[in-house]
Amino acid sequence: MMDDSRQFTLRDYTLDNRRLLLNETLFHNANGYLGVRYVFEEGYPQGFNSIPGQYINGFYDITDMDQPERLYGLAQQKQVMLNVAETQTIKAYFDGEVFSMFTGTILKSSLTLDMNRGVTIRQVHWMSPQGRELRLRVTRMASFDQLTLFTIDYELTPINFSGEILLESVHNGSVSNASDPHDPRNSNVSVQYLTPFSTQVQNNNSVIESMTSESGLKVCSCVHNVIDGEHTQEFLFNNNSSVCRLTVSADEGETIRLIKYTALCDSIRYDDCRAQAGEEIDKALSVPIETLYARQQTYLEQYWDNCYVEVAGKYDLNTALQFNLFQLIQSVGKDDHSNITPKGLSGEGYEGHFFWDTEMYLEPFFTVTNPEMTKCLIAFRYSTLEYARENARIMGHQQGALYPWRTIMGRECSGYFPSGSAQYHINGDIAYSIIAYYLATKDDDFIIDKGAEIIFETARLWLDVGCFFRDQFHINDVTGPDEYTCIVNNNYYTNVLAQHHLRWAVNFYKMYRRRAAFKRLIARIDLTQDEIAAFLHAADSMFLPYDTELKINPQDDSFLQKEKLDLQSIPEDNFPLLMHYHPLYLYRHQVSKQADTVMAHFILEDAQDIETIRNSFLYYEQITTHDSSLSECIYSIMAARLGMVEKAYDYFSKTVFIDLADHYNNTRDGIHVANMGGNYMTIVYGFGGLRIKRDGIHFAPIIPEQWEHYAFHISFEGNRIGVHVTADTCRFELLSGSPTDVTVYNKSYRLDDTLDFDMQTKIPRG
Amino acid sequence: MMDDSRQFTLRDYTLDNRRLLLNETLFHNANGYLGVRYVFEEGYPQGFNSIPGQYINGFYDITDMDQPERLYGLAQQKQVMLNVAETQTIKAYFDGEVFSMFTGTILKSSLTLDMNRGVTIRQVHWMSPQGRELRLRVTRMASFDQLTLFTIDYELTPINFSGEILLESVHNGSVSNASDPHDPRNSNVSVQYLTPFSTQVQNNNSVIESMTSESGLKVCSCVHNVIDGEHTQEFLFNNNSSVCRLTVSADEGETIRLIKYTALCDSIRYDDCRAQAGEEIDKALSVPIETLYARQQTYLEQYWDNCYVEVAGKYDLNTALQFNLFQLIQSVGKDDHSNITPKGLSGEGYEGHFFWDTEMYLEPFFTVTNPEMTKCLIAFRYSTLEYARENARIMGHQQGALYPWRTIMGRECSGYFPSGSAQYHINGDIAYSIIAYYLATKDDDFIIDKGAEIIFETARLWLDVGCFFRDQFHINDVTGPDEYTCIVNNNYYTNVLAQHHLRWAVNFYKMYRRRAAFKRLIARIDLTQDEIAAFLHAADSMFLPYDTELKINPQDDSFLQKEKLDLQSIPEDNFPLLMHYHPLYLYRHQVSKQADTVMAHFILEDAQDIETIRNSFLYYEQITTHDSSLSECIYSIMAARLGMVEKAYDYFSKTVFIDLADHYNNTRDGIHVANMGGNYMTIVYGFGGLRIKRDGIHFAPIIPEQWEHYAFHISFEGNRIGVHVTADTCRFELLSGSPTDVTVYNKSYRLDDTLDFDMQTKIPRG
Repeated sequence: MMDDSRQFTLRDYTLDNRRLLLNETLFHNANGYLGVRYVFEEGYPQGFNSIPGQYINGFYDITDMDQPERLYGLAQQKQVMLNVAETQTIKAYFDGEVFSMFTGTILKSSLTLDMNRGVTIRQVHWMSPQGRELRLRVTRMASFDQLTLFTIDYELTPINFSGEILLESVHNGSVSNASDPHDPRNSNVSVQYLTPFSTQVQNNNSVIESMTSESGLKVCSCVHNVIDGEHTQEFLFNNNSSVCRLTVSADEGETIRLIKYTALCDSIRYDDCRAQAGEEIDKALSVPIETLYARQQTYLEQYWDNCYVEVAGKYDLNTALQFNLFQLIQSVGKDDHSNITPKGLSGEGYEGHFFWDTEMYLEPFFTVTNPEMTKCLIAFRYSTLEYARENARIMGHQQGALYPWRTIMGRECSGYFPSGSAQYHINGDIAYSIIAYYLATKDDDFIIDKGAEIIFETARLWLDVGCFFRDQFHINDVTGPDEYTCIVNNNYYTNVLAQHHLRWAVNFYKMYRRRAAFKRLIARIDLTQDEIAAFLHAADSMFLPYDTELKINPQDDSFLQKEKLDLQSIPEDNFPLLMHYHPLYLYRHQVSKQADTVMAHFILEDAQDIETIRNSFLYYEQITTHDSSLSECIYSIMAARLGMVEKAYDYFSKTVFIDLADHYNNTRDGIHVANMGGNYMTIVYGFGGLRIKRDGIHFAPIIPEQWEHYAFHISFEGNRIGVHVTADTCRFELLSGSPTDVTVYNKSYRLDDTLDFDMQTKIPRG
Repeated sequence: MMDDSRQFTLRDYTLDNRRLLLNETLFHNANGYLGVRYVFEEGYPQGFNSIPGQYINGFYDITDMDQPERLYGLAQQKQVMLNVAETQTIKAYFDGEVFSMFTGTILKSSLTLDMNRGVTIRQVHWMSPQGRELRLRVTRMASFDQLTLFTIDYELTPINFSGEILLESVHNGSVSNASDPHDPRNSNVSVQYLTPFSTQVQNNNSVIESMTSESGLKVCSCVHNVIDGEHTQEFLFNNNSSVCRLTVSADEGETIRLIKYTALCDSIRYDDCRAQAGEEIDKALSVPIETLYARQQTYLEQYWDNCYVEVAGKYDLNTALQFNLFQLIQSVGKDDHSNITPKGLSGEGYEGHFFWDTEMYLEPFFTVTNPEMTKCLIAFRYSTLEYARENARIMGHQQGALYPWRTIMGRECSGYFPSGSAQYHINGDIAYSIIAYYLATKDDDFIIDKGAEIIFETARLWLDVGCFFRDQFHINDVTGPDEYTCIVNNNYYTNVLAQHHLRWAVNFYKMYRRRAAFKRLIARIDLTQDEIAAFLHAADSMFLPYDTELKINPQDDSFLQKEKLDLQSIPEDNFPLLMHYHPLYLYRHQVSKQADTVMAHFILEDAQDIETIRNSFLYYEQITTHDSSLSECIYSIMAARLGMVEKAYDYFSKTVFIDLADHYNNTRDGIHVANMGGNYMTIVYGFGGLRIKRDGIHFAPIIPEQWEHYAFHISFEGNRIGVHVTADTCRFELLSGSPTDVTVYNKSYRLDDTLDFDMQTKIPRG
């Protein structure tokens, strides 16, 4: 373990607004239930922009989304993740002065994300305009052990003065969501969705209850301030906010410590969210905060062990890699009311909606590291299956379920359906992730309990959307992953995924048909033998476009007859293209926003021969802009799998820093969670060559020359396997569990302790 | 002439709301500049819906059209035709009673549209609740002679009482646009766009000036009331309305006559619209109203002579036909600030936007009857050419002009671009209409002055939007006329039209290259020989989809691989499909909203052999819902041309009553103007077999067995030709002008007086 790599520290604060907004995202605290952006407790001077967001995963309001032409079935409302009551503010006054990073002199400062302890720590040594020196140390935590809890541990030490210090701890229920009228990926209006209806102080708890306008949901935030030693306390409050004024007499050199506990409870999870919030505060106060810190560390020790991965070499990207993995555990919803937003709980980009990112970029990580998390994510989809059925009817389908492209509570939120609801592959993605979860865990009970129903209902939809034409099964008028080409016929990605999906529907049916619980399911959803036969027939007849001249899989039926966009001639400022070209112009050209056919080849390599996969990779690489952060990681994986190690490394090194280096210039709106999962995948599924198929687990490691070694642990069928790769050798170790077969470089071996291999460089397939 | 057929009378008023809304449309008065819906002067009781619209063609405000996803280039504002100040209200009081159709007893009533005189006449014999009997006769006129003028001639005769009668004549500037949240073809919010900023009474004129919110336009309405005999007059007015109270002493049996003159002037046409409105009133008052009526009749005599057409036989559809033709002259804009909205000036459906309807359904009528009108309509397009260039840049094109799919002042107003801006065929439609105008008139000067620049700039766009693939010119990702199939490759209609367009660009270039004015144009728009060569090359290489199995032209590259929608199985209530199915569902099926390939075969029959045209007709007929009113007329024409006379007649008889019988159940929102042009076309271009091609004028008459005879006059190269068809013979007569060649049933003849032929029934081509 290289523990140092799990700390990330910025020294000597840069106070420009751009950097501060970026820090708000990078240093946010979250635990999958709540998320708090990193805003200075003492606030900012006038003129600074800040997005002081505090979010709850899956907590939403509903708002109108007027369609300029109200065609039938277009979503005319959407759900929006809400910014809930602000509980971050703490102001420190002493003898007519007030602490601020923007006045006086910062003698020393740092901001640290400690990913082993699961806290952020700000340290400042500061001199006031009148010469008072003080040290400030603020430790913030979103507790993994107690998901409703966020703490600010505020330690202030006067260095060269003594006297009364007044701390004002604010709790403000009057909050709005952020907006950016210039970026179509964000909301264009700043809206106050939540209305506080009760603000009270009881037992020194400041309690604000708020209600949404449309969704009828409530949230309660309860704040409790604890200060060491003798002090006076008074509360000021109005209808929607309270201030707790704490006055303490401080001696030079003596540290004052204020701990501000926030409990956030919503009415989705709790019948009585007000009572619950009070109980959560009581629970937190029942032990010293050091106990909470210790629990946080214990939780993360387990996490880091589960998803252990490290790289070491010429350019050490390890800290960035750990940063990315840390964001995954911060972002993942841990109950079936929530999922993973593309920005985690770090910002409001994409308005807190859930997309396919979860299934295709994040579950591949969790499934082989923390399979319980994947189970929970699938359970979320299961809990919204009824809405997917409703959505299928809206879209004109007589049977089956169609998951919405973007949603919080289960209903479609796509404003522009050609690159939204038309992405029917979401059904295949969800099915794929269930199959992958099954392959990695063999968790039959969960499949029978939840997975199979999703698989069958979404499989039914393929039969309804597709049709036979000249004896082949066609899927017309859908959109694949590439949003620069919409509403096409026979998108390769969609079709090959649907084929896989339909085949597994048949597999599961055959596997479980004699089990009682499964029989009850079959009866309940009225699944017939004829349908199973139809699934198989459609899968076997699936039309997969192939171009005999180029020997590639065309992205769709007509992709290759379009003109290529000359990407070289486009000024750099015109990327991402979606911000500078009309959709029709993009649709009309051979240009891809992101991996599409190449993505299909990653997830379903056995559907095609390696030469077609290679040709396709080389072809699409030329016309892909990677305007989506979901793209380069897939290109990295496929380059690795095709033996183009240098190229794989280049893609990897771009993606690993996407947020830390603000590569897309929009990390202020939130981290790019899918890419973080993609980052893990590049190492484990790309360089490590991991595949989990019906015939077992495969590896085919390669290593970039910039690295001395890399290593990772994965979980497979309850066993834990360690992989350690150097330039010359690779070792596989059974860390726990029972002996298991592994395929390495295409040959099968029994792993009961360790296996060692020489590194190979020619790897036709994993 | 069958003069009676030009009167249309409803007797014994039905006072249900549905019928009243329909009458508001059917009996509206318009002259191409202004339009006034037929609202009872005395108003309606509470609870009745009315759309008391008064409109000016081309007068608009701009309003936001929020796109739920603000993708680059999507129209985010639209123009809206405005409801201007209301000047219809006249209330009559006598001895504590007030006249209303909804109280007392209607002893007799009628409402007449007199299309020879160009007026509507309401006559009522009414008894009040207290037993007072009166006769009312109201004559309303939108003057063709003086376009700014609308008059209400209000004659009231007390039958069994005498006494004081008070007439209140209202002028109200506080008006809103109508709305219908349930129909995507209408606005969903009722908005007051106009704000009155000056309300005054001067020289007994009530003058209200109003300003739009966003477009910065002004409109002035000036109302003047004239009453016969002794009377008193007083005005009451506030900031946005005035009431003129006229008191007159009436004797039993003596008619009181109030003439209410309205002049409407906008700041688009008039620098000082206030002064102009006053002058217009003065002008109207300078002669007796009988003179104005006489001028109206004279104007219409000319019109009816120009567009003379009649049918007579078993089922006399002639009145409906005349009704339709009358709406055309009421609807057509008569300056280059205006055009023809799909609803004329009779309602707010489609928000007063101009579409391709003008070029493809209305100019074919005007070009052969009133070519000056076509010239004016083309001049409108010319006046907005700069906006079409701007639009092309927005859509990503480096050269040329792309006309917006829907517009008032020239900028795109499509809210949903896949069935809006994507209809690039609008460019070809405009070019087609210019070419057709040229062929019918040989008006070289106009082509050189305006037509050619449009032709060349829009031809350039085809080169930019299309591309060569396997040596053929492809046009990808556009939408054809059928809005149930959007964003397709190689729409046959679009491609064959582009081919025609490009060829004529070359023709015009060759014809005029040596003319000085033309050379100046070429220099100004920098048109090169290379471009001309490129036009020809693209035209000659144009890919026109053809299916060797079905021997038809597929609507687009992938149309035939889609599943057919089983139209028989769809409940009748689910039509029009656009109101009941998600667009993707429709796109995914072989189903057409309207004539598309069949339309192409109508306008450009020489691009295809007759068998393909026939096969295509029969194929598409099965899958076309005619959910657009632009469809059945084309099917009628093509059935006639293919010798399916019964079928042609059936389609014709459906279309002729679309508005009178409220066939689409939405005539309350306005008449269906395109269909009215289509109605003319079915007779002249369909049954009469008219074609005007480069080699001259063609006829190939057939006659439905239900008709004894039909006849029409048309204008060709300045000559006027009469055509008279009976079951056995057809006669061609040179009504005026010089001898000319005509092709009849495929053979050419010299027409210098009359030509007679036996009717043929087998007509392979015109």
